[in-house]
Amino acid sequence: MEDGFKTVSIVGVGLIGGSLALALKEKKLTQKIIGYGRNEQRLKEALKLGIIDSYTTSFKDACQAELIVLATPTGIFESIIMDMIKHLKEETIIIDVGSVKKSVIDIFERILPKGVYFVGTHPIAGSEKTGFENARGDLFKKAKVIITPTENTNKSALERITNLWQKLGAQVEFMSAEHHDKVYALVSHLPHLICFCMVNTVSEMDKSFINYAGSGFKDATRIAKSSPEVWRDIFLMNDKNILECLEVFIKNIEKIKNMLYKKDSEQIEKFIEKAKKLRQEID
Amino acid sequence: MEDGFKTVSIVGVGLIGGSLALALKEKKLTQKIIGYGRNEQRLKEALKLGIIDSYTTSFKDACQAELIVLATPTGIFESIIMDMIKHLKEETIIIDVGSVKKSVIDIFERILPKGVYFVGTHPIAGSEKTGFENARGDLFKKAKVIITPTENTNKSALERITNLWQKLGAQVEFMSAEHHDKVYALVSHLPHLICFCMVNTVSEMDKSFINYAGSGFKDATRIAKSSPEVWRDIFLMNDKNILECLEVFIKNIEKIKNMLYKKDSEQIEKFIEKAKKLRQEID
Repeated sequence: MEDGFKTVSIVGVGLIGGSLALALKEKKLTQKIIGYGRNEQRLKEALKLGIIDSYTTSFKDACQAELIVLATPTGIFESIIMDMIKHLKEETIIIDVGSVKKSVIDIFERILPKGVYFVGTHPIAGSEKTGFENARGDLFKKAKVIITPTENTNKSALERITNLWQKLGAQVEFMSAEHHDKVYALVSHLPHLICFCMVNTVSEMDKSFINYAGSGFKDATRIAKSSPEVWRDIFLMNDKNILECLEVFIKNIEKIKNMLYKKDSEQIEKFIEKAKKLRQEID
Repeated sequence: MEDGFKTVSIVGVGLIGGSLALALKEKKLTQKIIGYGRNEQRLKEALKLGIIDSYTTSFKDACQAELIVLATPTGIFESIIMDMIKHLKEETIIIDVGSVKKSVIDIFERILPKGVYFVGTHPIAGSEKTGFENARGDLFKKAKVIITPTENTNKSALERITNLWQKLGAQVEFMSAEHHDKVYALVSHLPHLICFCMVNTVSEMDKSFINYAGSGFKDATRIAKSSPEVWRDIFLMNDKNILECLEVFIKNIEKIKNMLYKKDSEQIEKFIEKAKKLRQEID
């Protein structure tokens, strides 16, 4: 196929994996989607819903595809590749769709055999929803997709993958994995971490109060419904950047705490205005 | 009027004040809405949009109504009442719609003349949107409205106000002002405070990163667009309860920080699962 890939294996048929499967088929960018997973019952349901064309629980079968998409939590990428390695064929392209890039790329560049090409990609299209039941073929339309090539990335593979995401309607942007991980530590990983702390604060003070929450609380804590496995792995694999952001956050908490103790009306208002001003820059 | 009030003055025609004006007229619970404000131009616009029936910048005129609704930031309630006091007529009912109740009620019970009745109410229907341009007549439909009577609250006034909110479709719940302020410190005031700190962290680390934010960040920080004046006053008037919640939040931040330093995968996952479990209890 000029654009796209004859066969695509999706390893981890969840919200992102399932949406990518639907999108590739809608855009006729593949002839066949193989779903790989450990839970056969779930794969059968995905097949029934028409999200995948066949399924397998064997890595050997999954490795028959021209393109392999890793859409599991990032923490198990290494063990997946180790299990796949003897079945991988030359010219196969592997991409991931995870929220952490540097440590993932380091793993792939270390262990992938020559002639198998890895391209790191991160579609900014996740949500607190999980499972292929929530998959949508238009999930990537107008979504940013960050691609993080390195000097070792195969040029032709990079071009094909860039083209693939663009065909799905995504706005592709390139950056180094290091930069990507700094950006997303700040605008995604830190907010998730804070959000979990906020809900656990309610949990410890008085769980029942949550029933009085309005739409502000609901919006602010929606991401606390995200997958624990996915976020555990992201936190562990981008820990240094997240901890750096966390220090600045803690300083801000101390700042407003002191203003409250001092009842410093003017400074409190300025503090809020500063946040409002930046937040208003996006929708 | 058996239900409702012949004339209602709305002091502060913003999102909540404007929505209440629209709702009262839609349900025919008043014959006339007087908008009070300091900015005549804004009041003219509200009149043009049909949100109010007349406007005034004089407290004397505003005090001609049977019901006076205070819908300004809570910090100026005291000075408003001091300015109104010589014009207030017997049997007038005053309500507020603010997010802090105890210190507001203390003020009213101290300064209101005998025969003028105050009932504290808090519709859980605000949002980061401000201004009467965003007002909607159905804003209170199915919304919780907390009413916080004290032993000094006039029974007949309480009944009329309860009835009024119910007629607007609200689900009225009664609690003490003290309890209200503890509940909302936890599920509204703390989340706003945290959210301002989160956005200011982005502001200090690298403003430009905000352009890479996805829907998770946008949802989580939407409330950072709220009114600085309103939230400054809420923070100052409920400082003790908020500081108490903040201590528990800071402990949670320290907990997850230590888990990250120790790379304690299992504890991190449990921490996230705990948050997810509670957050899933509401929509």
